[in-house]
Amino acid sequence: MKLTASGIWSSVVEIRRKSPVVHNITNYVAMNNSANALLALGASPVMAHAEEEVEDMVNISGALVINIGTLSPHWIRAMFRAAYQARDRNIPIILDPVGAGATAYRTSTARELLQKIPPSIIRGNASEIMAILEDTAKTKGVDSTAASHTAVDIARQLNRTYGSVVCVSGETDYIIYGDDVTKIMNGHPMMTRVTGMGCIATALCGAFAAINHAFAEATAQAMAVMGIAGEIAAEDVPGPGSLQLRFLDALYRLSEEDIKRSLKTEG
Amino acid sequence: MKLTASGIWSSVVEIRRKSPVVHNITNYVAMNNSANALLALGASPVMAHAEEEVEDMVNISGALVINIGTLSPHWIRAMFRAAYQARDRNIPIILDPVGAGATAYRTSTARELLQKIPPSIIRGNASEIMAILEDTAKTKGVDSTAASHTAVDIARQLNRTYGSVVCVSGETDYIIYGDDVTKIMNGHPMMTRVTGMGCIATALCGAFAAINHAFAEATAQAMAVMGIAGEIAAEDVPGPGSLQLRFLDALYRLSEEDIKRSLKTEG
Amino acid sequence: MKLTASGIWSSVVEIRRKSPVVHNITNYVAMNNSANALLALGASPVMAHAEEEVEDMVNISGALVINIGTLSPHWIRAMFRAAYQARDRNIPIILDPVGAGATAYRTSTARELLQKIPPSIIRGNASEIMAILEDTAKTKGVDSTAASHTAVDIARQLNRTYGSVVCVSGETDYIIYGDDVTKIMNGHPMMTRVTGMGCIATALCGAFAAINHAFAEATAQAMAVMGIAGEIAAEDVPGPGSLQLRFLDALYRLSEEDIKRSLKTEG
Repeated sequence: MKLTASGIWSSVVEIRRKSPVVHNITNYVAMNNSANALLALGASPVMAHAEEEVEDMVNISGALVINIGTLSPHWIRAMFRAAYQARDRNIPIILDPVGAGATAYRTSTARELLQKIPPSIIRGNASEIMAILEDTAKTKGVDSTAASHTAVDIARQLNRTYGSVVCVSGETDYIIYGDDVTKIMNGHPMMTRVTGMGCIATALCGAFAAINHAFAEATAQAMAVMGIAGEIAAEDVPGPGSLQLRFLDALYRLSEEDIKRSLKTEG
Repeated sequence: MKLTASGIWSSVVEIRRKSPVVHNITNYVAMNNSANALLALGASPVMAHAEEEVEDMVNISGALVINIGTLSPHWIRAMFRAAYQARDRNIPIILDPVGAGATAYRTSTARELLQKIPPSIIRGNASEIMAILEDTAKTKGVDSTAASHTAVDIARQLNRTYGSVVCVSGETDYIIYGDDVTKIMNGHPMMTRVTGMGCIATALCGAFAAINHAFAEATAQAMAVMGIAGEIAAEDVPGPGSLQLRFLDALYRLSEEDIKRSLKTEG
Repeated sequence: MKLTASGIWSSVVEIRRKSPVVHNITNYVAMNNSANALLALGASPVMAHAEEEVEDMVNISGALVINIGTLSPHWIRAMFRAAYQARDRNIPIILDPVGAGATAYRTSTARELLQKIPPSIIRGNASEIMAILEDTAKTKGVDSTAASHTAVDIARQLNRTYGSVVCVSGETDYIIYGDDVTKIMNGHPMMTRVTGMGCIATALCGAFAAINHAFAEATAQAMAVMGIAGEIAAEDVPGPGSLQLRFLDALYRLSEEDIKRSLKTEG
């Protein structure tokens, strides 16, 4: 897959023009940030988690983002109902296995979602991606204990088994689909000091997937935009509080020039 | 109703002096923003949603804000218990029918709340207000697909049927009560790119209603303060991340001069 | 207990080096802020509230923070399970009785937690601390109606009965343990206009307790860091929106010089 600045820009323009509805069933910590990032990019976020309404909400959405960051039984039931509905309607599903490996509950929920309704895209850090396949994978709460490249082989296996595009995010992001591996080297270390940045990345994948059903490309475009906006936000920034809001400003103002100047990728 | 800068200012001063407790049963996305906006204005927010305690919390509050933005069955039960208690105690209820029209669950919950315990004030965007009365109303997730003026006739019907003040917010805000229609033309388009600004407006209505039981006036005052603070926040702002925090700063620093200089209203 | 700038700094350095996992079962309003404050300080926050996973999460954590700010029955069950597990594993527990005194549900939950699994540290405002022991204590929602010094005697009783370090926060913070009372006079009044600052203080106590099992000292260090970062954030700040983000920047950049220059304490 060839990731280009002009391709990314076309997708950003289309998101801003169409303002796709992105339905998020996501954790309490990252809900507000995810909604704000989607709005800043130009998409139209909705949050709904009740079994009574998730199918209706999926029906009016361009993508469904499922994030297991703060689980409970009735949320899991809603995730499954929403996912089945999205599959039946051919609406892309993006799965974020937050904290897989940290508890058996998260690991088994991520695995069951993956097995029963393989998503279009899975995005996680190295620890999370490894934990989905390997019981021996280690994690530190919701933070990765491994560099992203160490999870590439597992990501390939996940892709072969389930057909999902797999994104292992980290200092370098890896987007794996078939024999294709796309690397993105954008971003800034201070982004790891802001909560929910991984969750935001997954939400942005939802916005790009809603308007681009070439999911590997959509994922790579989302991760590039994430990293570039993060770099812009980090310029001379005094700390992670300021970074968080400047990131939203950068998403909102993102220009073709920003992307051309900053994109660092290997195909 | 005559909306004046000096009347708005008197109410702001009284909120800052009395710091009324505003009880919010609101959605996960906007909780933090609503609490911060109420604190910045000078009110004292509480959030509580358990059936076990909502009546106790209503008893110490000056207003009850009910927002259906992220529903589930036990939250709905708590909303009803809190609303009945508020009605019995003569405590104003402010209803925000977030996403009415987007799912049957939200539409029916909003209607049932309205029919069983008519609130003092209803605030929503045009799509939401129309969806309460018309099954054919269209909405796009939680964002309006209609300009606010198109919902004025429906708002009149709602007011006649339930007695509630109805506020249709948008580029122009309409406050409808009896034959009276007050228009407010404050605000800034970038406010739609920050999540929860509508929810914040509803929360501010709660603060004004707590100290001013002339509810049409209280609503208009709240919407004017919302719009004026938004305009101040939007001056030379780089994007919606910065807008969000400057909005809180503007609420906190709001002066009589700000209101006199900026208020745009038609009676 | 002798609270020194160099001791505080040593603990900050150790938190940054070890990045202890702090497990939070906290309210919806303050989750995002608590996570961001812990990340800015250098700790590794996790949020998990399902009965199915709290014990697993406790097992990988250096401290457990329990905050009753938005209760419901299944969250309370999870709080007890997590607390029993933490006790059995000798992992420090920090309890924040948000709104104790405002509703019977909160008061009884706080008391039951305290009686069944006495925490290492309790942190609350004066109203909350008094409400734990006295049925006649008054509170105003979640804000205190009493100056912090008025709760010192109650705090002593709590400490004698349960063995917990008790922190009464306010304009002056009091840390009570045995015959020892440490006062901290750092902080800024505008911090009360940002939601969740008390919850953040409790979360920071978790980070310090994770690396320093002298819990009275850990609590005093956390409260000093809280107040000093708040003072730095408040310099020339236009309002509480800006204060909130600058506080995170200040935590992230906190230096030994900042602490030496600003610490105001009496032993």
